[in-house]
Amino acid sequence: MSTYTAITVPTQFVEANGIRFAYRRWGRQGGIPLVFNQHFTGNLDNWDPAVLDGLTPEREVILFNNAGIASSTGEVPSTFAGMARNAETFIDALGLKQIDLLGFSIGGMVAQQITVDRPELIHKLVLVGTAPPNHDAGDGQGHITPETAAIFGATYNPPENLWLKVFFTDSEASQVAGRAFLKRYLSRTENRDAPINEKVAPAQIAAVGEWGTHPGDRFAYLKDISQPTLVVSGNHDVIVYTVNSLHLVQNLPNAKLILYPDSNHGSWYQNHEDFVFEVNRFLNT
Amino acid sequence: MSTYTAITVPTQFVEANGIRFAYRRWGRQGGIPLVFNQHFTGNLDNWDPAVLDGLTPEREVILFNNAGIASSTGEVPSTFAGMARNAETFIDALGLKQIDLLGFSIGGMVAQQITVDRPELIHKLVLVGTAPPNHDAGDGQGHITPETAAIFGATYNPPENLWLKVFFTDSEASQVAGRAFLKRYLSRTENRDAPINEKVAPAQIAAVGEWGTHPGDRFAYLKDISQPTLVVSGNHDVIVYTVNSLHLVQNLPNAKLILYPDSNHGSWYQNHEDFVFEVNRFLNT
Repeated sequence: MSTYTAITVPTQFVEANGIRFAYRRWGRQGGIPLVFNQHFTGNLDNWDPAVLDGLTPEREVILFNNAGIASSTGEVPSTFAGMARNAETFIDALGLKQIDLLGFSIGGMVAQQITVDRPELIHKLVLVGTAPPNHDAGDGQGHITPETAAIFGATYNPPENLWLKVFFTDSEASQVAGRAFLKRYLSRTENRDAPINEKVAPAQIAAVGEWGTHPGDRFAYLKDISQPTLVVSGNHDVIVYTVNSLHLVQNLPNAKLILYPDSNHGSWYQNHEDFVFEVNRFLNT
Repeated sequence: MSTYTAITVPTQFVEANGIRFAYRRWGRQGGIPLVFNQHFTGNLDNWDPAVLDGLTPEREVILFNNAGIASSTGEVPSTFAGMARNAETFIDALGLKQIDLLGFSIGGMVAQQITVDRPELIHKLVLVGTAPPNHDAGDGQGHITPETAAIFGATYNPPENLWLKVFFTDSEASQVAGRAFLKRYLSRTENRDAPINEKVAPAQIAAVGEWGTHPGDRFAYLKDISQPTLVVSGNHDVIVYTVNSLHLVQNLPNAKLILYPDSNHGSWYQNHEDFVFEVNRFLNT
């Protein structure tokens, strides 16, 4: 068993299909590892250390940058299908035969696609703050909510205060939780990941647009995901509307939903102790 | 600590305000008791023994027939406000100063009203398969869902098979869980409760109609319920539509939601082990 934490775990690299993938892997070995799929514009540092350090005593955790993100080489595809193929290349490169899969926000869309592509590979699925194909995004253009456009369109000083708006509600309690999260997010001071380049956001936004116009029956795609699934969201998620989590559990064959009070897109960071408890329980049984 | 179970606990009576209330009270003493509010046409026997016997090792449980139900005397009011006043009379008659409150289906509507009336009395709230005022009931008349009208309008042989349709989905797994529930429901063979009379259902249906036409802002009423609340529903509840649970947690100040997969109005009976675990954890912390 490693003694790394989210702050100290080194970044490693593996090359496959012409892409050099950056990843971090640590935690209790011997079981099924949990692979994380990251949100819009996020890199290896954007995961909450409190969640990671809560999970690693019970399981191995694998974070990675998909192709074209930060310290990984390659190009970001403009569809989640393309991102899923790259993720599958990474997972195969590590020689993994069975994994648990977690996806947050657009990472949850990639995770759904990986599960459809490679059902034999996926043991259980954790979907946080995400949506099925043909998601509800209000009247936003390109299947992005109006709040998302406004929040990402504003400027922040310091820049990381963006996440106080993306992940937390405007309540005092949620903003206090947000500042605690920012402290944890910045607590890795050495060997931080590289920044993303200017091609990442446009490609990811294009993928959301494509996701929102999936052909065929609205949610038929979900019937093919029979893995036990835990869906988690905030009760007031303005980035990926909460109702999408209801669509997920009403159309996935075997999904349990948890919604947290007074919380936005970062509900699991705001409620990291409860989230860690629920996920360990879900994955262990 | 009593050694009763749901099957052996005797029925007791307490009189207040001209009403003789039937109740059952047992379980681990010394903490805050949990008071249950029953569903449409249900009496003391309609609770799932598996849930009760899961909770009583950690807390005292109190079941009661509200006024006019089965072995309790009095009349069933035609509003939840009236039912709440009678419930408060019962709770006060037992001399309780603080309780946890659980409500199932229309019992959850009564529980919301009790909490609004007497906030100092209620420590925490558990709302199962229920709805806020001005609930969504599809195109059903009188704020009853079309499925409710069809299911309660049919005949069953034996009659208790009604609950296979009310509480469980049509999937094989859910129906298996339903037959296991029916066995538990019938396992109390001695000292069962009296049947309800013919006035109960019409009064309860009238109360649902009144609940569906609450005056003022649609969900403003919920802002006054600041108690920590756990909301539980099935992902396919056709009796009280699942979306009502989303309305609850999006408008209550402090409510967590759990939705169970492949489950209908009796989601907590189908998933009694998980439900008991979650409720004990919610009430103990």
